[in-house]
Amino acid sequence: MTQFLKAREGILTPEMQHVARTEKLEPEYIRQGIADGSVIITRNDHHRGANPLGIGGRLTTKVNANIGTSGDHADIAEELQKLEVAIAAGADTVMDLSVGGPVDKTRREIIAHSSIPVGTVPIYQAALSARLRGKSFVELDVEEIFDTIEQHASDGVDFVTVHCTVTQEAVARLKKHTRILDIVSRGGALMFEWMAFNKKENPLYEHFDRLLAIAGKCDMSLSLGDGMRPGCLSDATDRGQIQELILQGELVERCREAGVQVMCEGPGHVPLDQIEANMILQKRLCRSAPFYVLGPLVTDIAPGYDHITSAIGGAIAAMAGANFLCYVTPSEHLRLPSIEDVKEGVIASRIAAHAADIARGLPGAMERDNAMARCRKKLDWEGQIALAIDPVRARALRESRHAADTDVCTMCGEFCAIKITQKALTM
Amino acid sequence: MTQFLKAREGILTPEMQHVARTEKLEPEYIRQGIADGSVIITRNDHHRGANPLGIGGRLTTKVNANIGTSGDHADIAEELQKLEVAIAAGADTVMDLSVGGPVDKTRREIIAHSSIPVGTVPIYQAALSARLRGKSFVELDVEEIFDTIEQHASDGVDFVTVHCTVTQEAVARLKKHTRILDIVSRGGALMFEWMAFNKKENPLYEHFDRLLAIAGKCDMSLSLGDGMRPGCLSDATDRGQIQELILQGELVERCREAGVQVMCEGPGHVPLDQIEANMILQKRLCRSAPFYVLGPLVTDIAPGYDHITSAIGGAIAAMAGANFLCYVTPSEHLRLPSIEDVKEGVIASRIAAHAADIARGLPGAMERDNAMARCRKKLDWEGQIALAIDPVRARALRESRHAADTDVCTMCGEFCAIKITQKALTM
Repeated sequence: MTQFLKAREGILTPEMQHVARTEKLEPEYIRQGIADGSVIITRNDHHRGANPLGIGGRLTTKVNANIGTSGDHADIAEELQKLEVAIAAGADTVMDLSVGGPVDKTRREIIAHSSIPVGTVPIYQAALSARLRGKSFVELDVEEIFDTIEQHASDGVDFVTVHCTVTQEAVARLKKHTRILDIVSRGGALMFEWMAFNKKENPLYEHFDRLLAIAGKCDMSLSLGDGMRPGCLSDATDRGQIQELILQGELVERCREAGVQVMCEGPGHVPLDQIEANMILQKRLCRSAPFYVLGPLVTDIAPGYDHITSAIGGAIAAMAGANFLCYVTPSEHLRLPSIEDVKEGVIASRIAAHAADIARGLPGAMERDNAMARCRKKLDWEGQIALAIDPVRARALRESRHAADTDVCTMCGEFCAIKITQKALTM
Repeated sequence: MTQFLKAREGILTPEMQHVARTEKLEPEYIRQGIADGSVIITRNDHHRGANPLGIGGRLTTKVNANIGTSGDHADIAEELQKLEVAIAAGADTVMDLSVGGPVDKTRREIIAHSSIPVGTVPIYQAALSARLRGKSFVELDVEEIFDTIEQHASDGVDFVTVHCTVTQEAVARLKKHTRILDIVSRGGALMFEWMAFNKKENPLYEHFDRLLAIAGKCDMSLSLGDGMRPGCLSDATDRGQIQELILQGELVERCREAGVQVMCEGPGHVPLDQIEANMILQKRLCRSAPFYVLGPLVTDIAPGYDHITSAIGGAIAAMAGANFLCYVTPSEHLRLPSIEDVKEGVIASRIAAHAADIARGLPGAMERDNAMARCRKKLDWEGQIALAIDPVRARALRESRHAADTDVCTMCGEFCAIKITQKALTM
């Protein structure tokens, strides 16, 4: 029985109690949120080592880090290091998006080592397996696609992205409303290619009940991928994107009827002034299902700095209703991220999530900020470093230049505003 | 005669025409904006080498980079390098905040080398000169303070920050409404100390007419400093801050009566959900004067990453009415910024400004983004690099990992969504 079905029956599970404790919320609030679908607890029954994670409603904003190999760069040890760095930097989940090297082994190692939930996109692997057998993804039959998803479920994957809503209807609408960048989602592009080649409906949509059965068996959460998410500002909030969102809303209801936990994925590249509307729209069309957004990136011109463009968009999105931010690293649009990129990406997203949680007025969200402010007033540098989001970097910067007065910093030196003010207050 | 007085008389100056051209706006729009005070052109008549810069109204959002020495680190050559790096990264102005080494020489060198407007905070230098003569800032008499300002005006400083509104009234209000961090503005703290020691009103407020006379003579813009800007989220939008804003509004009117160009400075550390209200308030209380904000930083816990916390706040501020963003570097709160910090800080602020200009619907703001999207569709990597906000970094990241297929990147390799989609579209 899934957490959703238990919540519906009024059962308060240990997982719900765990989430209530970590979120400093009433267990009953968690149970009700799960029962009405505004909250999910993502943890596959087969992933024993993972702490159950709550996403949605009035819970804190969560951050995901994408890791995984590519055909051009595949090293399991490096991926495990990325996992470690992501957790240390404050990621709440990781997604293993491997498409290179021994992907089964990579996924299983990541799951075995991870104390946080692990997500995947099974059709990436289906595409790779086909390629390794000298076939193309489009030649796979429906059985082979679902076999891969089943494999991920039994391996203990906590949530899977499934691009069910790239349907014939949605694609037709996308084509009529000309875009600059068409489809930029890997999973979305694969499904579109499969449909175009086979002249058939998207099998993940047509056989959605099979997905529900697989997910329900081990309480794996479904994350409804937005295969037609905008890949540039100009394509944002267009008919193709919103058509897909309507379809996501319909599938959210089918998940709830089947007792399966579900969240929705969202854009992407979105101009600053359209972000709030996108969040309101998702909450309405998808009946308050948790919203998992990639960015949004608020400009297209900053490759090398897209952790910043997406921290801007992510903060506004989370303030306006997004519950879960997928990080973007400085290497987005340029290369597979390095270990250092993973850290930079997680920290930028954590800043966005935290700023939004303060704006949302979550209880206790500002405690650490107030503690930092008090340390600044006392010129307590060790206290400031300990409270910093990245104590190692804070210390390195501070210690790289030495002030003559050890109680100030080299920015103002003897003209430290805090020292001057303290003195003046006693005059 | 200042640009303001000429605009009032209906004269279209070469400076207004220059600004109209660079902003792609009608010259008459610029003239009217200057006449009603919503736009300023900051350029001191004595700064021959600088291009006149328009700030305010429907003009693009501008970015300032603070440079300058401190007592702990003073090197003119390094400051000139910072100037060069700031301009290359896209700064619209620099402020020389030097308080160490030969500050007169540093300022004059920066002005001589700068093609963009240069701002200063003259009382920093007044404080330093006092210290060098074995005195304290509080022992300076009113003449000495105004002599320094006069010196900066005749050196060609384009705009000066003057902390006029740290008045006895505002300080009394601040003290009643207990803050965590009291005053964190260097200039604000100095004025507060002077007032506390001398038991007198703020001389910059009491003798504001002298400031107007100095500024009017060479068309130096006044930037009304917010000496009581919040230094942590908890202190934001409190009575002290808003009292000062009311006083700024009154001084804006006195500037306009005297024909002097003026802008207002604003916070600081502000929670995400209070930023828009702060912008609306300034525009109302200060009669649409251009608003120059420092950040705002949306959390206190990220020293080492405050270019990101302020890019988030700056983007929202600029979308909601701020016209001019003062950058914050990764070293803020920790040390005097390095040359590399200057670059990081300018680029983060430029991203925020550009994202906001798109959201504001400024004509042509999205052209470069659309060009980037078209290059992405064509997998035109040289085109993408050329359009990037930092082509050097974009190239370095791309070339650090080599894809087997040279037309894709190592993120997806053969599973490039753009390639797959192009193929599927022809099926």
